[in-house]
Amino acid sequence: MPEDAARPVKRRRGRPRGGGGDARERILAAAIAEFADAGYDSATVRAIAARAEVDAALVHHYFGTKADLFAEVLGFPLRPDVEVPLILRGPREDAGERIVRFVLTAFERSEVRRRGVLLLRTALGGKLATPLVTGFLTRELLPRIAGAIDAPDADLRATLVASQVVGMLIARYVVRLPAIAEASVDELVGRVGPTLQRYLFDDLPATDG
Amino acid sequence: MPEDAARPVKRRRGRPRGGGGDARERILAAAIAEFADAGYDSATVRAIAARAEVDAALVHHYFGTKADLFAEVLGFPLRPDVEVPLILRGPREDAGERIVRFVLTAFERSEVRRRGVLLLRTALGGKLATPLVTGFLTRELLPRIAGAIDAPDADLRATLVASQVVGMLIARYVVRLPAIAEASVDELVGRVGPTLQRYLFDDLPATDG
Repeated sequence: MPEDAARPVKRRRGRPRGGGGDARERILAAAIAEFADAGYDSATVRAIAARAEVDAALVHHYFGTKADLFAEVLGFPLRPDVEVPLILRGPREDAGERIVRFVLTAFERSEVRRRGVLLLRTALGGKLATPLVTGFLTRELLPRIAGAIDAPDADLRATLVASQVVGMLIARYVVRLPAIAEASVDELVGRVGPTLQRYLFDDLPATDG
Repeated sequence: MPEDAARPVKRRRGRPRGGGGDARERILAAAIAEFADAGYDSATVRAIAARAEVDAALVHHYFGTKADLFAEVLGFPLRPDVEVPLILRGPREDAGERIVRFVLTAFERSEVRRRGVLLLRTALGGKLATPLVTGFLTRELLPRIAGAIDAPDADLRATLVASQVVGMLIARYVVRLPAIAEASVDELVGRVGPTLQRYLFDDLPATDG
């Protein structure tokens, strides 16, 4: 096949350090295998590096943290574990609305929506993918939301937010229930935003934040 | 195989009316095939009867309506399309909490939970199952919830309720996020009930109901 014949030439044009491009691809393949075998929690950068036959430092150099590498593996062009805590750091009184708007605005972009729907489908449909996504959520996303809430029940508050956001995304983009699928972003921000706001801050004393 | 050899004997012990037991099984098999091929909306009792080579009246006799037959095919021991409107007919001020309590109490029963998790997984994971479940929800469940709400945006209100209930069930029983999976029914009724209440009745005038 012509593509195979052309590949060695392409490789020569790659990074100057010998095997650099190869190493990156080997790390990604190793990460996919390790996440699938070990699950998100048990997978380690060290084990991924060993599979790829590179130094762990090279994994960090190319991909950053384990969470970064997982996001790269998913190919998901959105980092809720980074973005949502940033959103929560803004003015508290409309944090719920800002989260809904952030998520829906992102999903209006087709590359986010396509990957996101695939991720929701596989995370919920597959015995392999479900613990992977559970691990990512409980280690990376939920603690960061919870960390922005000063309350003993911060974990439950963060998880309730996630439950409504996931339910909304499923209704709008996966199952496509017409009333939610056809609603405008503003409409849903107005309806669902106050729900998140209540889950996050109901019964908590006001702050200066 | 021994099971095959034993089958004719079992059939002889069936219902007295010749082929009665067979007809019931043939109808179920035909319904599964018809729902899969045509989708929930397009499937008709007439087409199912034709596949099973029985009269449509016999389908109604054994299984009732198309929705009844679909519930039977799913084997799901819960009829939200029947139960939720009944719940909504009670006192309005705690309807949201009653819905959460009804759903969670049902899911505490292992036969509901097992089937329910399977249904959620297949409905969201499968290209075939998703439109089936969408059809059932938009034809049978959501209009009945919406019918209990006297508002021009009743469809959106009902669908928002469904989005939060589905999100809660996924978090608790499918993805098993610890804070929600380990919360008591009472705790979740207290947290999620007011959300449903707001989706259902926020900004609507009080009634005598």
